[in-house]
Amino acid sequence: MTERTARGPYQNGIRRRREIIETASRIFATYGYMGGSLRQIAAEVGVTPAALTRHFDSKEGLLAAVLDNWDAEVDAMGSTGSRGLKYFTHLTDTIVHNRANRGLIELFLTLSAESSNAHHPAREFIRTRYGRVVRQAADRLREARDASEVRWMDDDEIEQQVRALYAFMDGVQLQWLIDPDVDSVAVFSRTLAMIFKDWTGHDEVPVGSAVGVAHA
Amino acid sequence: MTERTARGPYQNGIRRRREIIETASRIFATYGYMGGSLRQIAAEVGVTPAALTRHFDSKEGLLAAVLDNWDAEVDAMGSTGSRGLKYFTHLTDTIVHNRANRGLIELFLTLSAESSNAHHPAREFIRTRYGRVVRQAADRLREARDASEVRWMDDDEIEQQVRALYAFMDGVQLQWLIDPDVDSVAVFSRTLAMIFKDWTGHDEVPVGSAVGVAHA
Repeated sequence: MTERTARGPYQNGIRRRREIIETASRIFATYGYMGGSLRQIAAEVGVTPAALTRHFDSKEGLLAAVLDNWDAEVDAMGSTGSRGLKYFTHLTDTIVHNRANRGLIELFLTLSAESSNAHHPAREFIRTRYGRVVRQAADRLREARDASEVRWMDDDEIEQQVRALYAFMDGVQLQWLIDPDVDSVAVFSRTLAMIFKDWTGHDEVPVGSAVGVAHA
Repeated sequence: MTERTARGPYQNGIRRRREIIETASRIFATYGYMGGSLRQIAAEVGVTPAALTRHFDSKEGLLAAVLDNWDAEVDAMGSTGSRGLKYFTHLTDTIVHNRANRGLIELFLTLSAESSNAHHPAREFIRTRYGRVVRQAADRLREARDASEVRWMDDDEIEQQVRALYAFMDGVQLQWLIDPDVDSVAVFSRTLAMIFKDWTGHDEVPVGSAVGVAHA
């Protein structure tokens, strides 16, 4: 938009770097980090393996860039900024989004399963990231509890409820990756409604929710 | 136990074959099928890669043997033979079992995530197997419905309920693989109780259930 945009070799370098990260994300999501090779990534981008290591030093360096990029993309999708119970009404939107953009969820599930190996270079990233997601959601559920939007739960139960909800979300998406005919949105939104009923004691889903309409 | 047990080269061949399958299962569970190499499996068993292909023809042949063996092990763990609602009370035992024997669940989750790739050689196996598990559990829930152990659900809801339950079970175990401090049994049994309440309309869990005691 401005005349001062970077040009020439520098901008080409940025574009090339971006292209490598996107290709590596796709290859790692498809074959896993252990199964995806630098050679294959280089071939798809149309550069030499040496050019890859010039940009990223090593395969681990490339993985780190892929993970940073993932974090940035998830942040860009946005937590809605909703607080309390409303925070959870948007989870169905994430499932809908992932059906059209399978890259991130595929990368997440493949790396998560693979990184159960203690020596996997993504292990610490995955564990830290999952912990952060759980803590953030637990804070929202605590707000809901403190505002009496949901029944009383102690902090232990809050963590377990949040872990159950995300477990369920991951598992539904895994089933959909295994078999694209699985209606992940219908399965998820029905169960989310059951969880809300357990939390609130009644059948209504909070205003502003995507539940039940996201898949209409 | 009998004098007529096979001996010598034939028996050694069987033992060696078993050893290769067990090592390959562990390597594929750890690195994925794409990431685990014949070279690495051969080195751990202490044979040459050529000896592996003499037994299993190719890496895909070895994968087929690993998958067959998996099916056999899961069958041996046993469905309890329980019918109706009782069938579901034993799922917590499976989580307990898997905590002590992570190989199978790790293999399942790693291959499942990896085989979202349309060209993955385990794709059809994983999809068929998951479909069979869902159908079998749906039959049990239909029995429970027909015996009025649970509220009325139509067949679509029954499939969705079963998919939700297994999604949830997979996701909890994935969290435990990512972080062994996660109390997968507590998270699972609490949510199973919530699901039972939704199904039956009351808080009691059927007699014979492992829920609530499996982790005592």
